Amino acid sequence: MKKSLTILGSTGSVGKQTLEVIQNEPESFEVFALSAWRNIDLLKTQIEKFKPKYVVVKDDKLAKELKNKLKNKHSCNILYGEFGINKISTIKEVDTVIVAITGITALKPVLEAINAKKEICLANKELIVSAGEILTEEARANGIKIVPIDSEHSGILQCIQADYYENIEKIIITASGGPFYNLKETALDRVSVEEALNHPNWEMGNKVTIDSATLMNKGLEVIEAYWLFDIPLSKIDILIHPQSYIHALVQYEDGSMIAQMSNHDMRIPIHFALHYPKRVKNNLTRLSLAKIGQLTFKKLDTKRFPSVELCYEAIKQGGTYPAALNAANEVAVNSFLNQSLRFKDIIRVVSIVMEKHKNKLNPSISDIIYHDRETRKLAARVCSEIKN
Amino acid sequence: MKKSLTILGSTGSVGKQTLEVIQNEPESFEVFALSAWRNIDLLKTQIEKFKPKYVVVKDDKLAKELKNKLKNKHSCNILYGEFGINKISTIKEVDTVIVAITGITALKPVLEAINAKKEICLANKELIVSAGEILTEEARANGIKIVPIDSEHSGILQCIQADYYENIEKIIITASGGPFYNLKETALDRVSVEEALNHPNWEMGNKVTIDSATLMNKGLEVIEAYWLFDIPLSKIDILIHPQSYIHALVQYEDGSMIAQMSNHDMRIPIHFALHYPKRVKNNLTRLSLAKIGQLTFKKLDTKRFPSVELCYEAIKQGGTYPAALNAANEVAVNSFLNQSLRFKDIIRVVSIVMEKHKNKLNPSISDIIYHDRETRKLAARVCSEIKN
Repeated sequence: MKKSLTILGSTGSVGKQTLEVIQNEPESFEVFALSAWRNIDLLKTQIEKFKPKYVVVKDDKLAKELKNKLKNKHSCNILYGEFGINKISTIKEVDTVIVAITGITALKPVLEAINAKKEICLANKELIVSAGEILTEEARANGIKIVPIDSEHSGILQCIQADYYENIEKIIITASGGPFYNLKETALDRVSVEEALNHPNWEMGNKVTIDSATLMNKGLEVIEAYWLFDIPLSKIDILIHPQSYIHALVQYEDGSMIAQMSNHDMRIPIHFALHYPKRVKNNLTRLSLAKIGQLTFKKLDTKRFPSVELCYEAIKQGGTYPAALNAANEVAVNSFLNQSLRFKDIIRVVSIVMEKHKNKLNPSISDIIYHDRETRKLAARVCSEIKN
Repeated sequence: MKKSLTILGSTGSVGKQTLEVIQNEPESFEVFALSAWRNIDLLKTQIEKFKPKYVVVKDDKLAKELKNKLKNKHSCNILYGEFGINKISTIKEVDTVIVAITGITALKPVLEAINAKKEICLANKELIVSAGEILTEEARANGIKIVPIDSEHSGILQCIQADYYENIEKIIITASGGPFYNLKETALDRVSVEEALNHPNWEMGNKVTIDSATLMNKGLEVIEAYWLFDIPLSKIDILIHPQSYIHALVQYEDGSMIAQMSNHDMRIPIHFALHYPKRVKNNLTRLSLAKIGQLTFKKLDTKRFPSVELCYEAIKQGGTYPAALNAANEVAVNSFLNQSLRFKDIIRVVSIVMEKHKNKLNPSISDIIYHDRETRKLAARVCSEIKN
């Protein structure tokens, strides 16, 4: 039986790669709905190719524009805005919702999807960071699994052998270290947006590439792992591995370590997530250790990259703290991408904002959304103060 | 409930390390019986420490000698020879037989143990090489598992996730390459016994250390994996990994690879085998990739080390071919250890012997034992011809 899919964010980096995977397996998947927000030209191409029953764009205006472009050639329902996203995330015909949009705007539709008992393939780490407790509790209550698309978390899932869950001593997430790991402190001051976007191993969206360079990405992944795998924070570690072929390792308490490796190809964790809990053959290029020749490893220098400790702190504090951290970071990264903040001030902004955060424990969804919004305003102010 | 154990070969390298593991877990294991063949001084110490109910030595004379040494201080039944070994491998009170003796002499007692439905922890790879089909069929028929102690096979077992057994694309056994992997061809001619016994990573018995240097050990491990994991030969590969921290990898057909790693410490696979299918906490030193810094890999050069292809050929031929190969190799290695054969002639001897082997398909146990014995005679002749 085919899995019927909704892809939230089909024109983004993960969305496009998800469609690449699906395209090779028409016997396994059918695209029921796509959401694309603004990029209606690419969405049009995707509609022509995958023939979804529904698509969702940002607003009424874009919906009309898309309708004109399609010229009645495709009998596709065009919806827009929050209503549209919620509809395609909960509609009866859909089995699995692939969450490939970033940011906290996905929170409500994902919760609706979970309540409608849809399988979730999650590429949006901000969501788990900001609302990990609520999401994982809802998933548990509805008996559905949130399957991570993040390569590290896909790796963890693959290293964990269910029989040995109780025997996990440590989960180790690897980090390439980003483009600046070996730069001198003074040089960090002068790095450009272009340099920061030049990730050594992975092709990714801009936001996550900058998070890689600040190592905030790894900190967020620690929080993500904490929620997804229900594991104490003290059992989650980061290891610098510049080549990024090993994505995660699990140290068991009998002295053995299990690692998951693959080429740098997001289609591998996407494929795994789409088929989970099965493994299904694909033709993606296999990793050849003989060709690569070597893998190297280093201890993480948390002093130089304080972002990671901010994230550990966020989990310790709990409440709205992780959501605020994520919001502050997003604002600071955008500020850097707009060339209105220096690279090394990104984490400084986050740190200043977090010191001012008034934590709300046991937050509701509205609390999280409220604090997300308020923290963004605060972070924007801090950014402009630092700039001036 | 404690597991009651028989250790065949308690004074050898694996036997001693098995006792080290057991000694730290008196709540999990009790030593019911030990066999030690000749080294009765060490056996006496082991009796004093572990208080087994039975011990077995080589012959009547050694049994008497041991009895005198013990001076009636320990109420331990002293048996000898094949009868003794069979008795302690099948006796009602024993749950698990750890096979830490080398060579084909263990074949009959292991088959008896399997028929008596004892769990088998197997360190003797010659046995699986020579009689893999018979052993694995008997194990299946009796519903018992043969759990490998060999670090590579323990690694494979740990990488294989039962749910994904059908999705295995390749099993990859790593090889350090031994001490001579990077030597020039001409230098191989002059290597001494001492140099060959100097393995870069592992402390092992002499026979297996020489097999490591000729890479015959890896070839035998391929045969072992073939039988233990019921996997086609075309799906078993060898990868040179000089540091030997990754013991095995499993490539799945969806592009992900799972690896098992640990320090060079045979107590880790022994501990895993003893507790299988559980994992139990121990205090053996954990692998620190950050400290190690790098892992390197190379393609295996089968032209320089033809031993591996001889082993692939042995499985293709089937019948008594693998048993003969193993016998010829043992004789040649002993000949080298006695300084009556040059290092590079070890595999030459095996190759010459195999060309003369008259293969018997679907062999019985007697066929295997007969061909083992006859091949040893032939190999001895070939060794002395080459020497002269």
